[in-house]
Amino acid sequence: MIEHHNDGLSVMRHSLAHIMATTIQHIWPNAKFGVGPVVENGFYYDVDLGETKISDNDFQRIETEMKKIIDLDQPFNRTEKLIEEAIEWAKNTEQPYKAELLNDLKRAGTTVAKDLDIAELGTIVEGDAKVETVSFYTNGDFTDLCRGPHVVSTGKVGVFKLMRVSGAYWRGNENNAQMQRIYGVAFATKEELVHHLEMLEEAKKRDHRKLGQELDLFVFSDMVGSGLPMFTPQGTILRDQLACFSNELREAYGYQKVWVPHMTKRDLYEASGHWAKFGDELFMVKSQETSDELVLKPMNCPHHTRIYANKQRSYRDLPVRYLETTTVYRDEKTGELGGLSRVRSITQDDSHAFCREDQIEDEINNLLSAAQVLYSTIDMKLKVRLSYRGDGDTYLGDEKLWKSAQEQLKRAILSNKLDYFEAEGEAAFYGPKIDFMATDAIGREHQVATVQLDFVMPERFKLEYVAEDGSLKTPIMIHSALLGSIERFLSVYIEHTAGRFPIWLAPEQLRLITVNQEEKTIQFANSVLEKAKEYDIRATIDNGNESVGKKIRSAEVWKVPYSIVIGEKEIESGMVTPRIRSDMTVANEHSEHEIENFFRTIANEAKSRINKSSL
Amino acid sequence: MIEHHNDGLSVMRHSLAHIMATTIQHIWPNAKFGVGPVVENGFYYDVDLGETKISDNDFQRIETEMKKIIDLDQPFNRTEKLIEEAIEWAKNTEQPYKAELLNDLKRAGTTVAKDLDIAELGTIVEGDAKVETVSFYTNGDFTDLCRGPHVVSTGKVGVFKLMRVSGAYWRGNENNAQMQRIYGVAFATKEELVHHLEMLEEAKKRDHRKLGQELDLFVFSDMVGSGLPMFTPQGTILRDQLACFSNELREAYGYQKVWVPHMTKRDLYEASGHWAKFGDELFMVKSQETSDELVLKPMNCPHHTRIYANKQRSYRDLPVRYLETTTVYRDEKTGELGGLSRVRSITQDDSHAFCREDQIEDEINNLLSAAQVLYSTIDMKLKVRLSYRGDGDTYLGDEKLWKSAQEQLKRAILSNKLDYFEAEGEAAFYGPKIDFMATDAIGREHQVATVQLDFVMPERFKLEYVAEDGSLKTPIMIHSALLGSIERFLSVYIEHTAGRFPIWLAPEQLRLITVNQEEKTIQFANSVLEKAKEYDIRATIDNGNESVGKKIRSAEVWKVPYSIVIGEKEIESGMVTPRIRSDMTVANEHSEHEIENFFRTIANEAKSRINKSSL
Repeated sequence: MIEHHNDGLSVMRHSLAHIMATTIQHIWPNAKFGVGPVVENGFYYDVDLGETKISDNDFQRIETEMKKIIDLDQPFNRTEKLIEEAIEWAKNTEQPYKAELLNDLKRAGTTVAKDLDIAELGTIVEGDAKVETVSFYTNGDFTDLCRGPHVVSTGKVGVFKLMRVSGAYWRGNENNAQMQRIYGVAFATKEELVHHLEMLEEAKKRDHRKLGQELDLFVFSDMVGSGLPMFTPQGTILRDQLACFSNELREAYGYQKVWVPHMTKRDLYEASGHWAKFGDELFMVKSQETSDELVLKPMNCPHHTRIYANKQRSYRDLPVRYLETTTVYRDEKTGELGGLSRVRSITQDDSHAFCREDQIEDEINNLLSAAQVLYSTIDMKLKVRLSYRGDGDTYLGDEKLWKSAQEQLKRAILSNKLDYFEAEGEAAFYGPKIDFMATDAIGREHQVATVQLDFVMPERFKLEYVAEDGSLKTPIMIHSALLGSIERFLSVYIEHTAGRFPIWLAPEQLRLITVNQEEKTIQFANSVLEKAKEYDIRATIDNGNESVGKKIRSAEVWKVPYSIVIGEKEIESGMVTPRIRSDMTVANEHSEHEIENFFRTIANEAKSRINKSSL
Repeated sequence: MIEHHNDGLSVMRHSLAHIMATTIQHIWPNAKFGVGPVVENGFYYDVDLGETKISDNDFQRIETEMKKIIDLDQPFNRTEKLIEEAIEWAKNTEQPYKAELLNDLKRAGTTVAKDLDIAELGTIVEGDAKVETVSFYTNGDFTDLCRGPHVVSTGKVGVFKLMRVSGAYWRGNENNAQMQRIYGVAFATKEELVHHLEMLEEAKKRDHRKLGQELDLFVFSDMVGSGLPMFTPQGTILRDQLACFSNELREAYGYQKVWVPHMTKRDLYEASGHWAKFGDELFMVKSQETSDELVLKPMNCPHHTRIYANKQRSYRDLPVRYLETTTVYRDEKTGELGGLSRVRSITQDDSHAFCREDQIEDEINNLLSAAQVLYSTIDMKLKVRLSYRGDGDTYLGDEKLWKSAQEQLKRAILSNKLDYFEAEGEAAFYGPKIDFMATDAIGREHQVATVQLDFVMPERFKLEYVAEDGSLKTPIMIHSALLGSIERFLSVYIEHTAGRFPIWLAPEQLRLITVNQEEKTIQFANSVLEKAKEYDIRATIDNGNESVGKKIRSAEVWKVPYSIVIGEKEIESGMVTPRIRSDMTVANEHSEHEIENFFRTIANEAKSRINKSSL
């Protein structure tokens, strides 16, 4: 996520990108520069050094040189050039990437600039329509095409650290030259930097890709392709339990499960308007038997309108509420795919309500309650953004309807006592929305659920209901997802819990550890296993020939919430002393329990979705 | 399904196709003939009559003429011609379709003939490799290119009836000319014909497309495309309940749910060998962002091998059993799609076990038991076909393994006391299999479940386990599905039950009918509804202002298993007198029940998946 250049920290980070580029030019005078924007917590610069490959080993040298430039406290000077002069400059200084950006800017001004994401890539657009001049910033002997702003001088940049270098295609296009992207982080104080590095260290331990492998949750295969994870039995339990919880919460408010296929003729998206807007982000499907032009669904709403439209609806039937946890497919660039954070097979806990204008507040209320129950159960703090329409005429739908809807959204947020902020002009063109941000255990914020009003799609699809006065009216659509994408949610949640899943989610809830491999012991352990299954407890037996100590450690490595050791004593007494995973208990002493009582307790804990052991 | 020409009934039906063609040529002398094969219960002939359109109104005239030819008892005479002479004949008689078939035959002999399905389309291949002569049959003044055999004379053809006429593309290709396909049915005796027509009448009433509409179970949309049904909340309950039952039955035998995406790079199918065999039946997926060559999955096994292969497996870990109810996509020709019988989005209750050779019998035993429980619960009689390898070297895998496996399959069938028959040479090239046929309420047989051994795929994917002696061995794979395709199964099951679903499947299990719209009545009905939900009963309220009689009839039309009328008496006594759907009860008198007792009974009936009411 690229941040805006408008706060002090960002300005400082961007100045550090220039200071790093200055150093790189000193060390490698033939360096060709791409773009050097600010990113979360820091900055990067893309450079083309020909055959030279930078590695972590070069970081100290670059950092030392950067510190020298900081110590020199060189002022940042802004100048302007006519675009033709700027192109001349790029030619003379042998900066072909800058020349390309400038030529694109010249060719069609801001319009193209926006399309090309040049603005986001860190360069500059002056004026509103036609680009006539561009700005440059100079510090010492280094000059760069740059929108700015910058700190006053190189001495005013806080503390920084270079983090890593990776390959990056010029403009993100795999057909272009591959450059080297050098990342750094930067903060105002040393303490913040240290805290950030510690957080990163912790995040590394919790990396969901690493835990996914260790806990055997999901699998990638080169033959299947990137961004297409497959889930093992353990991972599938996580998926199913989460989806089931999310569905339950909405079924309580009258949502009903429906089912639609994963593809459609493109006609559906021509009707919805998605074809014109997102046509090139869709996976096209070619039928070899017919001339049908098909696509994989990137969302479910257009399909769901077809189910709504199949019957005549009266004002008394509304709200009609559909729910479907299903996988949509989006053609993400391979380079952007990683673990479960960004995938091509996106399973959404999607839902759509079709309602009257006077029903918006109640519907939103229900969805907010559901989201609050979900996120308090999984122990993440929620914050919401309420996005309103802005000025201008890019918004579709009746202005009075917008006003009423926005007020209803706000009332629902207030009555749910949610931590919220308002964002004018951040609504979609088709309706206001609420986005949910959840904070994880190491302080990172993730966008998760969303509730989105839609005044446009029902009209596009000519959806109707018979109003009380007998006239035909158009319903309003409410799109929502509580988890968002299950894959992305899992990437967040695995790291939030560090793989220590609460009892209701744990793929393995209970492990039975035998003290020996005697017939009698194994028989008893098997009978306990059968009993556990009667209570719907996900239990396994470890009756291998390792030592009990080793088996206990293995249960810890697998982060199993409960384990019980089964030996002579347990067989005779029918009593067990469960070991409880450390994060689930405050008590140090373990107490004895009758086996069935213990199972009843676990089953109840799972049912009530608690995080701590009640033993 | 095209039947073979080798039994008397089929021979007779094919002769009737010739007799019909004779008549058509008499009535429309310019008729151009396509092919006229035998089909289930009868025959058809494809004809091109130019601008003339045949309708049901012409059937009597054609039938009368046919009967005349039957009365004439013309002998069927076989002659042979060299293929060049035959082509000459087709030209002289102005039969361009026959000419095309003959030219194709001449061009490349039987090989091409097979590829083109010409044999199946009803024409003839003489000799094994190169076609030199073809045979003709003549009755009266009508001569037709035909492999035969035929009855001795036109008088020996039993009873028949023309049924319908429909459009059919020449050779099933939508780019070819559209012909008219005239269908007839034929039987040896009048009784059989009458029985068949009665069965058809009953089948029409039960047509799942009609019931699907009436009971609001599924929806098609032109914008989404043919063969891509969407399921309403009611239909989704059917899908989910069936899948859940099928899964439960296998989970009891250690199957674990996994999840894989709906697409893959084609590399996966190149490794499995499917690409070479079925490449042109796949839906190709085009990524616009990358150069990845992707396809929609037409089956799940190759993906599932990737999950198996992700870990080292020991002989003690086997069998590893995966289960997944998921949708696969097959590029069926549009013309072959109809209702849920044949769809492009095929949801399979798929499972795969990876096991050792000595575990085959136990695994098959478990799957047969599961299938038997399922089909006895849904009240359909099962018959199984056990398919063995035949002679020849088309079968892959060790011969000793085949022998052992076939014996294990048979023992499992015997110990499950299944009605079975053996079919030599009907196995797939990669292993023997068991197919399940279920008979529906009006006597039709449908292929449903399947259990298939696979000796080849594990080797193709280099799957391994560490044997007891430490060596690496290849597991055997068992593919199975109990319902088969959920869509196809529903098409059968909706017609089997005529939409009268048993309590555990009924989308609406209970309807509460209010006698009036008074506040008190509606309030009480709502409290009863809430109570029903506590028992997980799928209940609705009908509190409209129609008469009680009309509401009761509506509940009958919707085939709701239970309904209760709520009025003064019920409110005061807390007792209800449930109306039970007629097929679920033998008792004529209705008895009173305390409300919660009644709910407990329904909940138990649903849980134990019974077909009759226990009230």
